[in-house]
Amino acid sequence: RFGYFGAPSPEVVRLMFCNISGCLTGGRIFMSVSGEEMVSINIRDTRAIRMLQKEDIEVVLLTSDMDPVAMLLTDRLTERTGCRVVQVGDEPLHLLRKMVEEKKLDWKDVAYMGSDQQDVNCLNLAGMSAVPGDAPNVAINASKYTCRKMGGAGALREFAEHILLQKEKAKSHREQHRIDRINF
Amino acid sequence: RFGYFGAPSPEVVRLMFCNISGCLTGGRIFMSVSGEEMVSINIRDTRAIRMLQKEDIEVVLLTSDMDPVAMLLTDRLTERTGCRVVQVGDEPLHLLRKMVEEKKLDWKDVAYMGSDQQDVNCLNLAGMSAVPGDAPNVAINASKYTCRKMGGAGALREFAEHILLQKEKAKSHREQHRIDRINF
Amino acid sequence: RFGYFGAPSPEVVRLMFCNISGCLTGGRIFMSVSGEEMVSINIRDTRAIRMLQKEDIEVVLLTSDMDPVAMLLTDRLTERTGCRVVQVGDEPLHLLRKMVEEKKLDWKDVAYMGSDQQDVNCLNLAGMSAVPGDAPNVAINASKYTCRKMGGAGALREFAEHILLQKEKAKSHREQHRIDRINF
Amino acid sequence: RFGYFGAPSPEVVRLMFCNISGCLTGGRIFMSVSGEEMVSINIRDTRAIRMLQKEDIEVVLLTSDMDPVAMLLTDRLTERTGCRVVQVGDEPLHLLRKMVEEKKLDWKDVAYMGSDQQDVNCLNLAGMSAVPGDAPNVAINASKYTCRKMGGAGALREFAEHILLQKEKAKSHREQHRIDRINF
Repeated sequence: RFGYFGAPSPEVVRLMFCNISGCLTGGRIFMSVSGEEMVSINIRDTRAIRMLQKEDIEVVLLTSDMDPVAMLLTDRLTERTGCRVVQVGDEPLHLLRKMVEEKKLDWKDVAYMGSDQQDVNCLNLAGMSAVPGDAPNVAINASKYTCRKMGGAGALREFAEHILLQKEKAKSHREQHRIDRINF
Repeated sequence: RFGYFGAPSPEVVRLMFCNISGCLTGGRIFMSVSGEEMVSINIRDTRAIRMLQKEDIEVVLLTSDMDPVAMLLTDRLTERTGCRVVQVGDEPLHLLRKMVEEKKLDWKDVAYMGSDQQDVNCLNLAGMSAVPGDAPNVAINASKYTCRKMGGAGALREFAEHILLQKEKAKSHREQHRIDRINF
Repeated sequence: RFGYFGAPSPEVVRLMFCNISGCLTGGRIFMSVSGEEMVSINIRDTRAIRMLQKEDIEVVLLTSDMDPVAMLLTDRLTERTGCRVVQVGDEPLHLLRKMVEEKKLDWKDVAYMGSDQQDVNCLNLAGMSAVPGDAPNVAINASKYTCRKMGGAGALREFAEHILLQKEKAKSHREQHRIDRINF
Repeated sequence: RFGYFGAPSPEVVRLMFCNISGCLTGGRIFMSVSGEEMVSINIRDTRAIRMLQKEDIEVVLLTSDMDPVAMLLTDRLTERTGCRVVQVGDEPLHLLRKMVEEKKLDWKDVAYMGSDQQDVNCLNLAGMSAVPGDAPNVAINASKYTCRKMGGAGALREFAEHILLQKEKAKSHREQHRIDRINF
């Protein structure tokens, strides 16, 4: 990208996918005797989404029929986060591959946050990927970054800060590069 | 089972009993002023049940009048997990002994997950048994495996992965055995 | 009590007071937008109360207008635990002193579980006393035993097991003493 | 203040601001399928507010449209804590600066508890400032004291005890000073 003298610069994320179940919400589902069901999200995580959006990173939330509660909360999560919620099946990759291509992005420009078996392929493929600290081993092994925070308790915030730090680094790297080219 | 040259192979679980109270749900009961009661389950644990079922292990959930909330949630837990919920009394062994015999199984083919005093006899008897990490000592001492995860927070998932790993080992052991018999 | 050669035997608890707020319930109060309020209790703790009652230890739960939610749940907690719930003011000692006298007990036969400033005098006075692991320092310093478990998450169970172990020891001490007197 | 021989005495807090979101409540928001939303507060923290008020420290709770649930609970939090709830925007300092001036106080007489980016300026300015132990780094770095307890789980209580201890120290310092002046 930087011509002959160009060195590879740290990648910059343009699109982030985040599985709602276990990442934005904790894995816990509260069931009441009268039939009400509840999940919890964390205000630090919804703020993290706003932080990413301000830096022009599109955040897309994923849900599947494996977590019926998350599906029912789609509208309210959209309202709270300003994110599109996309319903994916057992293998999110099928749908997301198309989305990435349509946006003319490369998977190395994509961040993915997942929490279980169904996320393994996407965790492997994405340029940056993370799981909450309480994820099962199968997901931890596939992800590039394991958050210290748990799902629904700041893990998304931690990953967002990691992404923004990388973006900052890439920016100062480009600046440095431009200065180098001017001086020599 | 393997004739003259047969060595004892690692056992394979065919049936699993899991006490709902303290294992599938955490021990916590939420009580509202208006009379509503709530417990929480974890999506990782319900997925674990599906994982076991896919490997042809029948999972039976146990409840007793010692945990009235769990009893009231029977239908909803069946729907979510696809498991039969059986009501046992102070001593689950009375009923489960019959079930194991009717299925012509041996207790060494049975896995049991419990969390307190009333589970002690079953924990002792089952071929594989576990308690969540926050179980009282009386239950920990009787079980063969103590999960690092807490009840309602991934303990069942941890035990399920342990069971499936044993099954995998038993399978490769049988394969190895078959190869040995062919070659020699 | 054992005449001339008698050594002091470990005390046996006959009555236990337990502050609901912060001990039986965690300190957490859930407030919903629609005006509903919720607290949580732990099934291991309610079982602990049943264990004490079986050993002829009367358990009395305490509540005060400092925790309005606990007061509203009085009937339901009585139903679940079989305990009398007594409303005490800022200083539980005023009322409890009378109760202890009426039952012709000594404070050394009384166990007390509390969680904050208002429990300090009772924690100091009772023969056995405990606070949950997450209690503030002022309460920890006044109590004889600090639970490793948190309030509403097994602290009461831990203290109950401690009490029952002492009772067991006292019993075997008495047995030993009787044998000694017969033999010498 | 103490004339010629006066040494600077430890400061005494007269006014405390506390952001509701993440300090008084945990960051967690419970969302039910039927549209109900819930947060939790801790009885130890509400007691801490009463402790501060008894020592003539005014406590003002802050909320913003970044946490819609906290805003909806304003009336109930006022009722429970006896505090005024003030709505601040993205930068609490704009409004609080005026409040501090109107009360003819200096920022060194003010304590501030916050939990995120928007609190950074106030955390820097206040004479005493704290964040809960689970706050993001940006807030931890700006605050003078990082609580070991988490938000909604005793952090406010911990900070209140820290403030009251300082006040005690200042008082005994003044006493000592008065004695010194009399004796020499």
